Amino acid sequence: MTVSRTDLANAIRALSMDAVQAAKSGHPGMPMGMADIAEVLWNDFLVHNPKDPNWLNRDRFMLSNGHGSMLQYSLLHLAGYDLPMEELKRFRQWGSRTPGHPEYGYTPGVETTTGPLGQGLANGVGMALAERLLSAEFNRPGHDIIDHYTYVFLGDGCLMEGVSHEVCSLAGTWKLGKLICFYDDNGISIDGHLEPWFTDDTPKRFEAYQWHVVRDVDGHNPDAIKAAIEEARSVKDKPSMIVCKTIIGHGSPNLAGTHDCHGAPLGENEICLTRDNLGWPHEAFTVPEEVYAGWDAREKGQRAQAAWNERFQAYKAAYPQDAAALERRMSGELPANWAETVKGYIDGLLQEKPNIATRVASGKAIAALAPVLPEFVGGSADLSPSNNTLWKGARELVAPVISGNYIHYGVREFGMSAIMNGMALYGGFLPFGGTFLIFSDYARNAVRMSALMHQRVIYVFTHDSIGLGEDGPTHQPIEQVNSLRLIPNMRVWRPCDAVETAVAWAMSVENSEGPAVLALTRQNLPAQNHTDETLAGIRKGGYVLSEAANGQPQGILIATGSEVALAMGAQARLAEQGVHVRVVSMPCVELFDKQDAAYKESVLPAGITRRMAIEAGTTGLWYKYVGLQGAVLGMDRFGESAPAGVLFEKFGFTVDNVVSIFQGLQAK
Amino acid sequence: MTVSRTDLANAIRALSMDAVQAAKSGHPGMPMGMADIAEVLWNDFLVHNPKDPNWLNRDRFMLSNGHGSMLQYSLLHLAGYDLPMEELKRFRQWGSRTPGHPEYGYTPGVETTTGPLGQGLANGVGMALAERLLSAEFNRPGHDIIDHYTYVFLGDGCLMEGVSHEVCSLAGTWKLGKLICFYDDNGISIDGHLEPWFTDDTPKRFEAYQWHVVRDVDGHNPDAIKAAIEEARSVKDKPSMIVCKTIIGHGSPNLAGTHDCHGAPLGENEICLTRDNLGWPHEAFTVPEEVYAGWDAREKGQRAQAAWNERFQAYKAAYPQDAAALERRMSGELPANWAETVKGYIDGLLQEKPNIATRVASGKAIAALAPVLPEFVGGSADLSPSNNTLWKGARELVAPVISGNYIHYGVREFGMSAIMNGMALYGGFLPFGGTFLIFSDYARNAVRMSALMHQRVIYVFTHDSIGLGEDGPTHQPIEQVNSLRLIPNMRVWRPCDAVETAVAWAMSVENSEGPAVLALTRQNLPAQNHTDETLAGIRKGGYVLSEAANGQPQGILIATGSEVALAMGAQARLAEQGVHVRVVSMPCVELFDKQDAAYKESVLPAGITRRMAIEAGTTGLWYKYVGLQGAVLGMDRFGESAPAGVLFEKFGFTVDNVVSIFQGLQAK
Repeated sequence: MTVSRTDLANAIRALSMDAVQAAKSGHPGMPMGMADIAEVLWNDFLVHNPKDPNWLNRDRFMLSNGHGSMLQYSLLHLAGYDLPMEELKRFRQWGSRTPGHPEYGYTPGVETTTGPLGQGLANGVGMALAERLLSAEFNRPGHDIIDHYTYVFLGDGCLMEGVSHEVCSLAGTWKLGKLICFYDDNGISIDGHLEPWFTDDTPKRFEAYQWHVVRDVDGHNPDAIKAAIEEARSVKDKPSMIVCKTIIGHGSPNLAGTHDCHGAPLGENEICLTRDNLGWPHEAFTVPEEVYAGWDAREKGQRAQAAWNERFQAYKAAYPQDAAALERRMSGELPANWAETVKGYIDGLLQEKPNIATRVASGKAIAALAPVLPEFVGGSADLSPSNNTLWKGARELVAPVISGNYIHYGVREFGMSAIMNGMALYGGFLPFGGTFLIFSDYARNAVRMSALMHQRVIYVFTHDSIGLGEDGPTHQPIEQVNSLRLIPNMRVWRPCDAVETAVAWAMSVENSEGPAVLALTRQNLPAQNHTDETLAGIRKGGYVLSEAANGQPQGILIATGSEVALAMGAQARLAEQGVHVRVVSMPCVELFDKQDAAYKESVLPAGITRRMAIEAGTTGLWYKYVGLQGAVLGMDRFGESAPAGVLFEKFGFTVDNVVSIFQGLQAK
Repeated sequence: MTVSRTDLANAIRALSMDAVQAAKSGHPGMPMGMADIAEVLWNDFLVHNPKDPNWLNRDRFMLSNGHGSMLQYSLLHLAGYDLPMEELKRFRQWGSRTPGHPEYGYTPGVETTTGPLGQGLANGVGMALAERLLSAEFNRPGHDIIDHYTYVFLGDGCLMEGVSHEVCSLAGTWKLGKLICFYDDNGISIDGHLEPWFTDDTPKRFEAYQWHVVRDVDGHNPDAIKAAIEEARSVKDKPSMIVCKTIIGHGSPNLAGTHDCHGAPLGENEICLTRDNLGWPHEAFTVPEEVYAGWDAREKGQRAQAAWNERFQAYKAAYPQDAAALERRMSGELPANWAETVKGYIDGLLQEKPNIATRVASGKAIAALAPVLPEFVGGSADLSPSNNTLWKGARELVAPVISGNYIHYGVREFGMSAIMNGMALYGGFLPFGGTFLIFSDYARNAVRMSALMHQRVIYVFTHDSIGLGEDGPTHQPIEQVNSLRLIPNMRVWRPCDAVETAVAWAMSVENSEGPAVLALTRQNLPAQNHTDETLAGIRKGGYVLSEAANGQPQGILIATGSEVALAMGAQARLAEQGVHVRVVSMPCVELFDKQDAAYKESVLPAGITRRMAIEAGTTGLWYKYVGLQGAVLGMDRFGESAPAGVLFEKFGFTVDNVVSIFQGLQAK
């Protein structure tokens, strides 16, 4: 058998339809449609090393239309990654390396988790930005050690999603010339032929974003694809969108070009017909040696990485400090003087005792930590002055100069978050980004994706309650703190003062296993008294901030953030009446929940059942801590427009009301 | 004083800067920048009647850049709406009709709540679509009783947001010629001059959406504005975007053109200077009679509505049934045969006892109710076959013919939801739309806005748990049901069978005070046994589905949706062991919470403390019902890719595990 490009591409088609059939679920249409494009890109252009999927200078490849996961698994298998045929046979099964959608961390060579449409593209923009920023920071004349492409496959769904607008607008502004996207222009989505709901002139749209567009490429013609990629690579100052006309399910005689092959197995019969039609006589899950040989990227990859290793050694010799810094950053390790820096900053706060908004405290923490954290890449969705994310000394990225460590994302919360995920996945960066807490709603699924992918992304969500005042109910978070707490692997911090804010920042930086949300006030909060014990307690997520004066608490007030001061006021008032209560501050519920039973019992002894929780947000969660007999003071309704002080008063966040509710709780 | 157009516009500028100054917070820059545009639109084009803000055939006017609320309040006050100067003086104060952002229901003439950027534009698309659909349905030759424009003001922020892409793409596809938008192209956002983060060629972008674009209009030249509006109105088959070059804070000698006047009072001194600069010598909150006279729209509005009333009477005479149908729909009342239709459908289910997925049950409910509900306008974000939203007999909107009652929204969850809000606000429609529950994340803030605005929008969110199986963690909702439950004024239904699904649909249709979410399974569920009592119980949100066999429950199992069958299985198994428990089905937690104490006690008696809740989602909420001593079986981690049966087994959703956990609970 003489192996043609089409034969190579057909291997993808066959593996995809076979694996979907075996799984009795999945999406064969996209892999069959994009197989030729993938073949040309991978065999003629993609620089990667199957033996080291983590090689720093590899090209990044992402499938934003992640339902076509069998395309990526086929590619990884054929190119020689550690993904044996057995795994393809276990597509979509428990414990396999071939889950239904590409999942970061499950499969060597999968750069990001995709499936939620548009976000793979957004991650790609983040990676291309990371490449650009890192190269600007570390490359030296004659030493282009960071220099590679980012390739993204995407479909109609990605382009219909709003996030595609946000991130492609930015990619154009940022002139990300090494970002090359392939649009699978197959005219089909799940509801059918898409003319009735998608009539964008997509090339024109992307030109409006300042992209280079390669139009009308026959996605089944390898020469045309190759020419398109070459053209895209030749344009250095604009990202490229290659518009590939394809037929979904290409090769299937009866289902190609219809949405019936999008998300369901072709069926045994149609698979037989497709094999005949493609001239692919091999049995299911069988790839001839000569086809494997045509795909095998191992040797070429090893050579490429070896050549780069040499270049990196030369760089290291010439710029040892830069090389060491880069290596540290890529490893994810914190700098040697980290702990000391944190301690120094907190010691200063303990002395200063500032009565400031926690958003201001967050700004101070950023400013204190940034000098030792060159991996910081901060930003805001057009709320820099409100989020206090822009620190003195930050280097703002100002297009057309694409370098720096602070990014003005514009009013694009979802895009910002998904781009941060891309940068975090790339490595070498610790992204944080700000918006108002309420607009975490706009970014919600990307925030979830940070958690799902265990990425260290820090969300600076300010204006965290009705305390923001006059902007009213559209801007007042009521349910957002609790809603974010629901996301697995997420830490939500709602600190009560500058010290808790500092610890929240430190622990969020230290946690390489997942993201964090910092929910911060607009309004000033008093500094609480801290001791070594309370400092340790903050790191446990919840702790006794103030013990009952007589050491024998008759009840417990639990509070977070701005309501801690309220609890302290109520404790004092109750003490005047001879009722002694403990105040527990719980800045991070998820961390507290992870403590051992003995610690939790020490903070919330089972014997003390007279309990009240106070938080200016929805109340449901707190019954877990106060029980059926306890009380919760919160907000289960939308807010109103008025000055913050008026709102707290009207909604019952007063010492009087806390005392009154607590007194209504039966003593044991 | 001879009153010029500029004088009229300056009234807006003065009122805006005065009100923001009095409130000590707010956004003077936008109203001062868009005042001239607003003056021309309102005085020369807008058809409305200040004496009847609810007149059906009024033009709709919306401020998508809602932070400029003082523009709208000034307009309403000056035109003669019931918004006296006293209310402008109470801008942003508790109980005023002038909250920080325009809030639907607070102020006569405010058509929708805005502030969350991009969504006012999306609502406008929904209203323009509603106008189009309603006119297609009700107008008759010679009787254009529905025939008006929708005007939207918007800013850079709206255009950066992804939702603007989703809805403007649809508006172009739908050829909404009577939608006319005004882009406040002032080059400024909160972070400053926006060249470094917003370089879209916006006119080109909108041409790519098939819009008509009027470019480069001087937003401070009334003649140019007038000509632009006339041009836009002359283009009947495309929505129009008028790109208005404006200066933010126009009139302020020192702050105009800077972001310093975006979101803060100008200050007393600058206000004095601005008065001088504008030639507006009047005191704060003072408008001369001749300026009021130039604005007063009451007489013209009354005449316009009177003329329309005559036309409507003629229509009513010619088409009495149509007129009656339209009047019923606009009133929001359900048809006379509603209760009977619901009862008939449910009676059928009680006989049939189908073991079907609740998404299928939902599809059956839609099909059963649609014939009596012509106000239904269904749709899906490109998941019609999966969401079971498209019923037999639906009339699909297929561009370029813009009529029907089923909308293919494409892969645009956020846009769909915000458009549905616009249609619901317009009146005459009961919108519902589907997507996978997980992608409620993409739509989150629009879902919140349905609740905040008390709009009857029904969200059909299918594939509601790990029960969706192989698509894996990106597609498996873990936290979404509980996250949606947190939204005030939202009802989240998670029905356990076809009957609960039918009641959920009926009650969602009947509730004119807010939206509902239906969280529905992909997988089949067994029909439970229902009685008159359980049917009444469903309507209370939670009820005893199955009493302990001996009538003396030693414990309670609470479950929702797909886990109710599991609870039933565990009840039976426990009974074999001589342990008798009650099964409570709680399809709508919010409704249950609203029942009186006696009813709640009857379902969950305080004396029965051995309680366990079962739901394939996050667990935190359920401690409110099972207490500190209770148990919750749920999912506090992300899912995996595998067949549904395997996942339920691996994650412990088995009768064995429920029984084992329950047995571990201490008997009282």
